[in-house]
Amino acid sequence: MESDSRSGRGERHLVRRLQAALGAARAGSSVPFGDDLAAILPEARSLLWSVDTLMDGTDFRSEAHDWRVIGRKAMAVNLSDCAAMAAVPVAALASVVLADSLTMEDALALQEGMQACGAAYDCPVVGGDTNSWGHPTVISVCIAARMPADRQPVRRDGARPGDTLWVTGRLGGSILGRHLTFEPRIEEAIQIARRLLPHAMIDISDGLVIDLDRMLEASGCGAVLREVDVAAAIHADAERLAAEDGRSALAHALYDGEDFELLVALPADVPASECARLGLLPLGACTREAGVRMVDAAGAESAVEIQGWEHFQ
Amino acid sequence: MESDSRSGRGERHLVRRLQAALGAARAGSSVPFGDDLAAILPEARSLLWSVDTLMDGTDFRSEAHDWRVIGRKAMAVNLSDCAAMAAVPVAALASVVLADSLTMEDALALQEGMQACGAAYDCPVVGGDTNSWGHPTVISVCIAARMPADRQPVRRDGARPGDTLWVTGRLGGSILGRHLTFEPRIEEAIQIARRLLPHAMIDISDGLVIDLDRMLEASGCGAVLREVDVAAAIHADAERLAAEDGRSALAHALYDGEDFELLVALPADVPASECARLGLLPLGACTREAGVRMVDAAGAESAVEIQGWEHFQ
Repeated sequence: MESDSRSGRGERHLVRRLQAALGAARAGSSVPFGDDLAAILPEARSLLWSVDTLMDGTDFRSEAHDWRVIGRKAMAVNLSDCAAMAAVPVAALASVVLADSLTMEDALALQEGMQACGAAYDCPVVGGDTNSWGHPTVISVCIAARMPADRQPVRRDGARPGDTLWVTGRLGGSILGRHLTFEPRIEEAIQIARRLLPHAMIDISDGLVIDLDRMLEASGCGAVLREVDVAAAIHADAERLAAEDGRSALAHALYDGEDFELLVALPADVPASECARLGLLPLGACTREAGVRMVDAAGAESAVEIQGWEHFQ
Repeated sequence: MESDSRSGRGERHLVRRLQAALGAARAGSSVPFGDDLAAILPEARSLLWSVDTLMDGTDFRSEAHDWRVIGRKAMAVNLSDCAAMAAVPVAALASVVLADSLTMEDALALQEGMQACGAAYDCPVVGGDTNSWGHPTVISVCIAARMPADRQPVRRDGARPGDTLWVTGRLGGSILGRHLTFEPRIEEAIQIARRLLPHAMIDISDGLVIDLDRMLEASGCGAVLREVDVAAAIHADAERLAAEDGRSALAHALYDGEDFELLVALPADVPASECARLGLLPLGACTREAGVRMVDAAGAESAVEIQGWEHFQ
């Protein structure tokens, strides 16, 4: 949990500089650089891919977690990227750098965890790369996905002032276990895309507020969260964690990473009943004014600090 | 440089067990598990992908090498995988785990090295993932490629007894610098595939003998190398290294990794003049008898030990 660096370091700062360098590399691509998935072929927006890397000590702890569970997570975070664009995963590659201390059985359990999770979503591991070294284990999974017929990828940059904001499940406290066991919202995403025609979507990997801010920055608008709505979307794990660490459950819901729920911006005229039928919980609305604000039950507004997990601090 | 482990550890042993576990996952795929590239979509053999990971201290040394050069290598090894199947690269993803000690300029130089190398082969970096930690830097590049119209991927499992064996360039001593600066044989591979209709092809990443053995194992045959031919394919760097370390230049040509030349099995009736015109150097021929043997100028045969770089020892 780090504050968003304005100091010239920080992952977002680096990614912005990379975007500036790379943005021109593929002018005319159907998906802009920096979204959850990229287009494989510049002329076809139906075939997408992405890569996500997990590190021992950061994304999992091998001394505490089973290698099968770790493999599952490595696959699931990539499936979640597919869900974020309402794409259907088709296949994955796994590249592992194994700590020298791993046994052959550990390595196979890791692979089985990836494979079993992928298989549950019709996404087999079809290749990869195996290395080892004297440092902690690193697991990269690259995933390919395709759009259902006649569907476009749901990008993160399409939110507009007036859109309503929704989330596919309760938030906060995932570190108590859900960060390993979450179900990627593939099917939910496809239903949302088909029935509600969302303007923008992103998966919450680094925290509600920072991922909301990414969507808003890409879309060029701001948002107001209703405190009563966010409070109603607090996960029981956030309450448990709050009881332990003294931080508020609301703060856990706003800032904890690895919920892997989807944040969805919908046209204002989508009926709330339709959203509820798909299990969506309301959070607030997009605004013309930039930044993220929270409005309490009495109508008082306050700025929400942009915080969340960020690498390369 | 490690001998091929028969002890239950070793990358090849692990990969064999993974193949057994995963081979069934995609029965009917156009490219078998374990080749240089895998098919993205099971029904289409024209679109392929692969991933390769480089680690500081193993594949490069950040204290000695410029980050731009390191980035170039990370892209080039993946382009070499495309060359190995005579595929045309189309786009790449880069996932980096940066050591905390890197500066923003280092990170950008790394990215620029990847990007510039990709651009030289019309293969832009279109997305990726940035992480950091307190251990050495890890760089994963995932590459997508497509086959030229009406062409099939040149697999490693099609060599047959009687095929002649060729290589696209001289071998050995790449550690003196060529392991960073080699040119992936994309264009050569496409010409070889179009004009010579090879039965099998593989890139020499871990050493001539171990990569030859991989081709032979996949193809179900053996090979005889002619010592006079291998001697004529020794790189000047192998001679230089031999003068320093006392190992023979021939051994360097047989066992050194990271030449990234292509090893090609051709139908026996392809004229040597055709091969020479494409810059191919002869090595020997495939045999019905398994294993790799060397025949000297006097006609005496001896077994060649299967050695080369292997992870996970």
